[in-house]
Amino acid sequence: MKIAIYGYGNLGKGVESAVKHNSDAELIGIFTRRDPQTITTASGAPVYRAEKLVGFKGAIDVVIICGGSATDLPVLTPGIATDFNVVDSFDTHAKIPEHFEKVDIAALSGGKTALISCGWDPGLFSIARIYANSVLPNGSDYTFWGKGVSQGHSDAIRRIPGVADARQYTVPVEESVEAVRRGENPVLTARQKHRRECYVVAADGADRNKIKEAIINMPYYFDEYDTCVEFITAEEMKRNHNGLPHGGSVIRNGVNGNNAEHKSTIEFSLKLDSNPEFTALVLVAFARAVLRMNRRGINGCKTVFDVAPADLSPLTADQLRSRFL
Amino acid sequence: MKIAIYGYGNLGKGVESAVKHNSDAELIGIFTRRDPQTITTASGAPVYRAEKLVGFKGAIDVVIICGGSATDLPVLTPGIATDFNVVDSFDTHAKIPEHFEKVDIAALSGGKTALISCGWDPGLFSIARIYANSVLPNGSDYTFWGKGVSQGHSDAIRRIPGVADARQYTVPVEESVEAVRRGENPVLTARQKHRRECYVVAADGADRNKIKEAIINMPYYFDEYDTCVEFITAEEMKRNHNGLPHGGSVIRNGVNGNNAEHKSTIEFSLKLDSNPEFTALVLVAFARAVLRMNRRGINGCKTVFDVAPADLSPLTADQLRSRFL
Repeated sequence: MKIAIYGYGNLGKGVESAVKHNSDAELIGIFTRRDPQTITTASGAPVYRAEKLVGFKGAIDVVIICGGSATDLPVLTPGIATDFNVVDSFDTHAKIPEHFEKVDIAALSGGKTALISCGWDPGLFSIARIYANSVLPNGSDYTFWGKGVSQGHSDAIRRIPGVADARQYTVPVEESVEAVRRGENPVLTARQKHRRECYVVAADGADRNKIKEAIINMPYYFDEYDTCVEFITAEEMKRNHNGLPHGGSVIRNGVNGNNAEHKSTIEFSLKLDSNPEFTALVLVAFARAVLRMNRRGINGCKTVFDVAPADLSPLTADQLRSRFL
Repeated sequence: MKIAIYGYGNLGKGVESAVKHNSDAELIGIFTRRDPQTITTASGAPVYRAEKLVGFKGAIDVVIICGGSATDLPVLTPGIATDFNVVDSFDTHAKIPEHFEKVDIAALSGGKTALISCGWDPGLFSIARIYANSVLPNGSDYTFWGKGVSQGHSDAIRRIPGVADARQYTVPVEESVEAVRRGENPVLTARQKHRRECYVVAADGADRNKIKEAIINMPYYFDEYDTCVEFITAEEMKRNHNGLPHGGSVIRNGVNGNNAEHKSTIEFSLKLDSNPEFTALVLVAFARAVLRMNRRGINGCKTVFDVAPADLSPLTADQLRSRFL
């Protein structure tokens, strides 16, 4: 399959590396709104101005759109889906219905297939929730994120005056995770589910106490959580907090039996050294399914819920049954 | 959806209770090769002789066939699939291609949809393997089963002279599970993956040492494992080992990044008080998908790999996107 990347940030770079791991995928090019001359790619793939994309109609099977959910994807995905099969990672939950509607109209108008909100959450975690809820109709759902870097929380700290750099780790509260795993169904507050670890480089002469207070009292982001703040040097930040690890668990505890006398626990969990690289691998697997669905005439906007697992794999149905069933 | 159960052993009873947990499912009847007069059902559902099934054509949406894989299902599933949509839990791995072929011909001849090899392994574990392999093309797969009762191993012990009753638990070796979870890729022997705990009621006057030796040296079943044997009374068996718990984990460790420098771990795990009840819940969720696929004209033999997650849920596409995505 011929893949194009639209947007060359962390996720776009992740897709570039994900293509290398999929022998049936070929990277046609990277499309950017920046000056292509300023970009050096890891793979040596050609870089084009975003406006050139439309000239590649017919030469690209799927465009993987790597933009932000706040302002990029609401415009980009419907725009590109009229001419190309696309996959995006739109993750603003409240706006999914609106995004779905717009992308659906665009993709149907061009006979294309568009998969939105792909990745691991939304994405693989959403899939885990639907399987678990379908199999255990009576039960309780839990999602724990981390330990991992939250870009949104790190950015929020960086906006505080006197902060030169910051990294925030979301950490699940282990006692709560274990209680859920034991099949208990605790009602958990935000504080009981996650704690927040912040590493901050203060600007020269900045008031550290003031920064710390500004962090731990920040509404919504931090005030509902147990938050620890540690000041480190720029060198320590670079050496110890350079990666973007993440992960988490989706757990459903359900009851079964004639009198709901038995318990079942289903858990799906991820531990990732690199959040954007893993997200990108999910996008590429679903790009394969999007292309297949498009060839079958299944057009319009889809989500991960509409994709049969077999369509994600390069293997044939016979191979899948003999190796994985 | 109108469900019929064919076969009323542990799994059939599980389906009966699973129907109760699914408000869109209705149990039309239980079909048995035994004398219906001898059977009292937990739900009060009517019991019919197996031969009566064909008279219910049009009144049943999906027949869930609850028989053994060795001799029952290879005959029953192709036989029933000509007249009814069916789901079975065929689990003799080596014979899946042959079973698939026969069921496919039968289902296609009657315009029916048949899903084979459903449950949790094969079933949900198979699905976990295909997602993990599609997302992480370069990696290693591990499956650990247990702690749980293995019927096959329990039966093997019961066939030893002097054994009145037996229960065998398959137990994953925790150190190995933890090593895999840490992202190491150990090469593990059978002994390093699982150990076997046996609880045995000896017949009066039986030679316990001889029984123990017969167990731990039994080829394939026990000789490749660390096996412990404990003799207990019939009362202890009934009190402490009456259930059929099971579970396990499917783990894939993969590498990603431009130089495979990062690791990702995907784990799917189950902890089940009742193996047959949980298996039955999976069968009922997939029965829903089978009926929908049949109504769309998707006929023939299918596996869990061919079913999009959305088709498992009673919720609408809009509801699924807003609740689970």
